[in-house]
Amino acid sequence: MITNTQGAQMKRVRELLAKSRARSEQGCYVVEGLRMCREIPAGDLEAIYASESFLLRHGAEELPGVPETVSDSVMEKLSDTKSPQGVLAVVRQRRHEAEELFAGPAASLFFLEHVQDPGNLGTMIRCAEGSGIDGLILSADCADLYNPKVIRSTMGSIFRVPVAVVDDFQGTLLRAKACGVKLFAAHLRGEEDYDRIVYPAKTGVLIGNEANGLSEEAAALCDELVKIPMEGRVESLNAAVAATVFMYEIYRQKRNRLAL
Amino acid sequence: MITNTQGAQMKRVRELLAKSRARSEQGCYVVEGLRMCREIPAGDLEAIYASESFLLRHGAEELPGVPETVSDSVMEKLSDTKSPQGVLAVVRQRRHEAEELFAGPAASLFFLEHVQDPGNLGTMIRCAEGSGIDGLILSADCADLYNPKVIRSTMGSIFRVPVAVVDDFQGTLLRAKACGVKLFAAHLRGEEDYDRIVYPAKTGVLIGNEANGLSEEAAALCDELVKIPMEGRVESLNAAVAATVFMYEIYRQKRNRLAL
Repeated sequence: MITNTQGAQMKRVRELLAKSRARSEQGCYVVEGLRMCREIPAGDLEAIYASESFLLRHGAEELPGVPETVSDSVMEKLSDTKSPQGVLAVVRQRRHEAEELFAGPAASLFFLEHVQDPGNLGTMIRCAEGSGIDGLILSADCADLYNPKVIRSTMGSIFRVPVAVVDDFQGTLLRAKACGVKLFAAHLRGEEDYDRIVYPAKTGVLIGNEANGLSEEAAALCDELVKIPMEGRVESLNAAVAATVFMYEIYRQKRNRLAL
Repeated sequence: MITNTQGAQMKRVRELLAKSRARSEQGCYVVEGLRMCREIPAGDLEAIYASESFLLRHGAEELPGVPETVSDSVMEKLSDTKSPQGVLAVVRQRRHEAEELFAGPAASLFFLEHVQDPGNLGTMIRCAEGSGIDGLILSADCADLYNPKVIRSTMGSIFRVPVAVVDDFQGTLLRAKACGVKLFAAHLRGEEDYDRIVYPAKTGVLIGNEANGLSEEAAALCDELVKIPMEGRVESLNAAVAATVFMYEIYRQKRNRLAL
């Protein structure tokens, strides 16, 4: 049983929780909690740790691998959450190239530029899976995809939604367009309401930074700037809310087409 | 100029930021940042404080009242945010009764039961204003409406969207029904998709707790349980995301009716 936080394994977990650089260098991240640990894809698990009291309560049957036992006090010190569930895993990152997301005859994609809030990012990934979005493409200055808060907010969708992180965001938009993806964004200059648009089989929606919206450069590359209508004195919506409005409208249109 | 945090005024600000009980006893809360301070309704302002460097940069013209000057270091210690904007205000709470929200021939209302995340709550209030929702009714065990994180997430909508907090949530649902409000909720037992429903002029949507969803008791009081369709392995959406889906669908239907 692991009884102190200073050994190599626990030191690694702490680093992977705390440091985006460690995550990126090692190509791994940490997942916490039984619910999420159960959903880790078979090949992605690197190590799993469970506390003594977790194993007494749950046993190890539901876990995706054989856990190392960790004392309760060490688990408490490791965990990123206030009430640790007693189980966490080191998981290998899946790398996706933006290009693989463009390929094929149909793809509904979201392009996130400089989205900073980890909760927003994770929530969008969860909503993307729920609404059948095929993938997300993140500019490199978004919040770190493998930040524990992002992972937690995805509620497991991180394992299933392809996400590509790209250094050259504008270049990627151009390549998506060249592959037939039509690009949309909500924008103050948009005139047509988002729900009056017919979204084609290859659709990309751009979502910008929480405080500053989309850059002019990215907006200029859109095929169509649209409007999310708003009442009152509201000038913009939370980034995850705006993404939700688009995701569920695109999904509504898909479901309506299937119902015809 | 106020140069230490121990005087009566600064002590009060710190208490209002930190303690839900102090907010409730004094009937006040704290608003931070120029953007939000500008939107404080005339009669609601109790006191406003600006840092020396804020006043050098911006002056006091845009503020809704005459600020007391506070040294930069005191402002930094007071602020709830990492990069304080240098201005904050003490604002009087507006009390709303649930009943006033039910009255009248039309009302789209959201009933939140035990919503715990301040960011979710604030985001829903902001989205409610944006989508023309008439008011929110919160069970008393929701996150404190005047928590600084809630206030910040509303981006000013807290000043404009009527919110009632009720001790007797189920009793309030019954009274809403008696006033002609038809109640809907997304629920695993729901069969009809949320976008196949025609939402009447008096509509209430129930949103439950982030982890546990709606209580059985509250679900039993709904006139109709509906479904938000979901792909993949997603079983539920983030509470603010689910609220957004309903809010923008109700708004879509209103706009379509107006366009006819």
